[in-house]
Amino acid sequence: MTPFKRIGPLFTDLYELTMAAGYHRNGIFEPATFSLFIRDHHRQRAFYLAAGLEDVLQELADFRFSPEEIDYLRETGLFQTDFIDYIRQLHFSGDVYAMPEGTVFFPEEPLVEIDAPIVEAQLLETYLLNTIGFQTLIASKAARCVQAARGKALIDFSLRRTQGQDAGLKVARSSYMAGFAGTSNVLAGKLYKIPISGTMAHSFVTAFDTELAAFEAYADAFPDSCVLLIDTYDTLQGARHAVTVGRRLAQKGHLLKGVRLDSGDIVALSREVRRILDAGGLPDVKIFASSGFDEFSITRALEKGACIDAFGVGTKMGVSADAPYLDIVYKMVHFNGRGVRKLSPGKATRAGRKQVYRRLDGRERYLEDTVALREERLHGMQPLLEKVMQSGQILQPIASLDDLRRRAASNLDALDPVYKTPSAHNGYPVSMSRRLLEIQG
Amino acid sequence: MTPFKRIGPLFTDLYELTMAAGYHRNGIFEPATFSLFIRDHHRQRAFYLAAGLEDVLQELADFRFSPEEIDYLRETGLFQTDFIDYIRQLHFSGDVYAMPEGTVFFPEEPLVEIDAPIVEAQLLETYLLNTIGFQTLIASKAARCVQAARGKALIDFSLRRTQGQDAGLKVARSSYMAGFAGTSNVLAGKLYKIPISGTMAHSFVTAFDTELAAFEAYADAFPDSCVLLIDTYDTLQGARHAVTVGRRLAQKGHLLKGVRLDSGDIVALSREVRRILDAGGLPDVKIFASSGFDEFSITRALEKGACIDAFGVGTKMGVSADAPYLDIVYKMVHFNGRGVRKLSPGKATRAGRKQVYRRLDGRERYLEDTVALREERLHGMQPLLEKVMQSGQILQPIASLDDLRRRAASNLDALDPVYKTPSAHNGYPVSMSRRLLEIQG
Repeated sequence: MTPFKRIGPLFTDLYELTMAAGYHRNGIFEPATFSLFIRDHHRQRAFYLAAGLEDVLQELADFRFSPEEIDYLRETGLFQTDFIDYIRQLHFSGDVYAMPEGTVFFPEEPLVEIDAPIVEAQLLETYLLNTIGFQTLIASKAARCVQAARGKALIDFSLRRTQGQDAGLKVARSSYMAGFAGTSNVLAGKLYKIPISGTMAHSFVTAFDTELAAFEAYADAFPDSCVLLIDTYDTLQGARHAVTVGRRLAQKGHLLKGVRLDSGDIVALSREVRRILDAGGLPDVKIFASSGFDEFSITRALEKGACIDAFGVGTKMGVSADAPYLDIVYKMVHFNGRGVRKLSPGKATRAGRKQVYRRLDGRERYLEDTVALREERLHGMQPLLEKVMQSGQILQPIASLDDLRRRAASNLDALDPVYKTPSAHNGYPVSMSRRLLEIQG
Repeated sequence: MTPFKRIGPLFTDLYELTMAAGYHRNGIFEPATFSLFIRDHHRQRAFYLAAGLEDVLQELADFRFSPEEIDYLRETGLFQTDFIDYIRQLHFSGDVYAMPEGTVFFPEEPLVEIDAPIVEAQLLETYLLNTIGFQTLIASKAARCVQAARGKALIDFSLRRTQGQDAGLKVARSSYMAGFAGTSNVLAGKLYKIPISGTMAHSFVTAFDTELAAFEAYADAFPDSCVLLIDTYDTLQGARHAVTVGRRLAQKGHLLKGVRLDSGDIVALSREVRRILDAGGLPDVKIFASSGFDEFSITRALEKGACIDAFGVGTKMGVSADAPYLDIVYKMVHFNGRGVRKLSPGKATRAGRKQVYRRLDGRERYLEDTVALREERLHGMQPLLEKVMQSGQILQPIASLDDLRRRAASNLDALDPVYKTPSAHNGYPVSMSRRLLEIQG
């Protein structure tokens, strides 16, 4: 049972295929290097968290056109027979260098580089941008939420408003990797072995004659994992009903797990509800809050003294609402033994196969990065890109999601707090090596 | 070959399942009606275009827990054996009322209503919100782009930056339904029979020693569908190289299809490039433009006199960047013979099973809508929700995507232009019927 599902090589912009046909017709099969990196004109993020590599490795290892896919391409009438015959036997034979998932990185730093015959490398563009781009987008957003929460637990509640099905699954995975405690997404729980979590909706409360009757019925069904949604009619009255139910559960040897707030002035209500629960003899009952939370509103709520033990974080994290896409690009930087670049205004790229080096201080904190040529060795600095595929073969076993989560946590710990506030902009020092600059001509 | 892939009933927030278990344990199986609609506090859209129903109907007709899914739920330890046995045989037995895809609608108007035993209706919540919500989000954004383009062709170029794989496919489908001419997305072309379109990337140009050599190689491979990207080094020089290639193609009886601009001052460049092409004897060569277009920048470019024949519209449409989610909700409005509602501050909902009626003028233009109780008949107005499933069975054959596209076009034509500009906010008159208001108590 693996969560990976092949999407296949037709998950591409048509021009990758027409360019491949152009290369093929002109006998161009030389090795190329393409570099995947984030340009950052918007400066909405002071750091990024790499994600998506596991899917990429499996897709590349599996890269073949199926007979049905070949049939479709033939039926388009766009391609000549010899090209169709050529891609029928095509597989990915290249090398891949990548930052492992869970690595903190910055704009202008390549996080994936592909060395392969130009046709193969070109055909991967759309898939790589989509896969690495989206999962990195969400991991980065989720990491910002985790920083804002100062140790309070966060649960991914975004499934109902993610941009489609694949997004729903990848948001659960990426946010868990970034430090979320779990997800409401049952399928993600199954596929990725992420802890699942859930409470109740207003419809459950309104299906009973009274709120108290609804609470009692739910507590009866889930005596040891009961979180009551208390805002359907009146939040403070709901809190009193929760006390009634909590006391009855306690008499039977169970602990009411929590109550959830989902509307109104959450900060003020959380303090009132905490007082009601404490006065009712239920100091161990947790307060969960949901309702449009993101790193900005979590920060504000905690600064204002909210009594919230855990946040349900939904839509705004699940679509990265303040920055719903990355300016991520995949550019040829080396071809047939020479560096290449483009000069388009505002979109210029730097030639050369690259490595990213990071300098740490004595306490393993990140001081600065240098983007260098791949063959350079920068003294006293750690290289961030690892060779993960060679000649189309995956080199290491796929790391577990919990391993990736630990790497993300240690990477985030090593990053100076100044870059981790919601309002932080770029500023972490990233420079280019002298040799890299020299070859730009 | 169908584009539909079952996602299954685990694509849900956990609380739908815990609530279902709560209903089951308490013997609550009465019929409920849930209503799916957009709240609109943000007022970023003056109209919406309904999408996503085809997937919903197929998923509901197929709604079953597989043995593997049942095993996972059992292993969570959350559910009692009698509930597991109950859902093992569960299928969707309810009725569905819905606006057909391609219908123009407004906030507070239900676009789907589900009548089913409460457990079944509850279990659909997350899936319905995700599916209808996302596809409607994109169809609405794409329709705004189509209006802005004033008849110029739009091509979906978003695949590289959509939020995941499913999003990439659904964006291609939704934008085509909304009036786009095609997509760069090859897999969507195969699955949905959408016209596919593509040009070349900068990497192709940089793989050759000179731009002219790259253009000639591409024209040789695609003499009848050749669109040259001319901004890799210098756009105006690129246009002159395109003229050279276009003339050679003409000598061989082929027509250079177009050139593409992707950076710089697109409006000014488009006029210069048009002049160069015309002076070169190539007045029929089209100018394509891409680079961050959406309804706002398309409007500005055309107002400033851009000489652009077709736009590649990518990221900003594909993630609905200015409004990347809908405030779409699924609320129980009727249960066991009575209307129900909730009163949560800022999130109150109206009780009652509903129908939306629309009044048209003598030229079939939309004048006003009234949300009424389902059993009401409003004289001289057209009902928008149709019964599309009965007792779990799909009632009509699934309409073709081209039929839906025609419906969308005629719906958009019937909407007053005042609602279709990029800056238009809400304002279309939607009222509630007297009887609907009376039952709110």
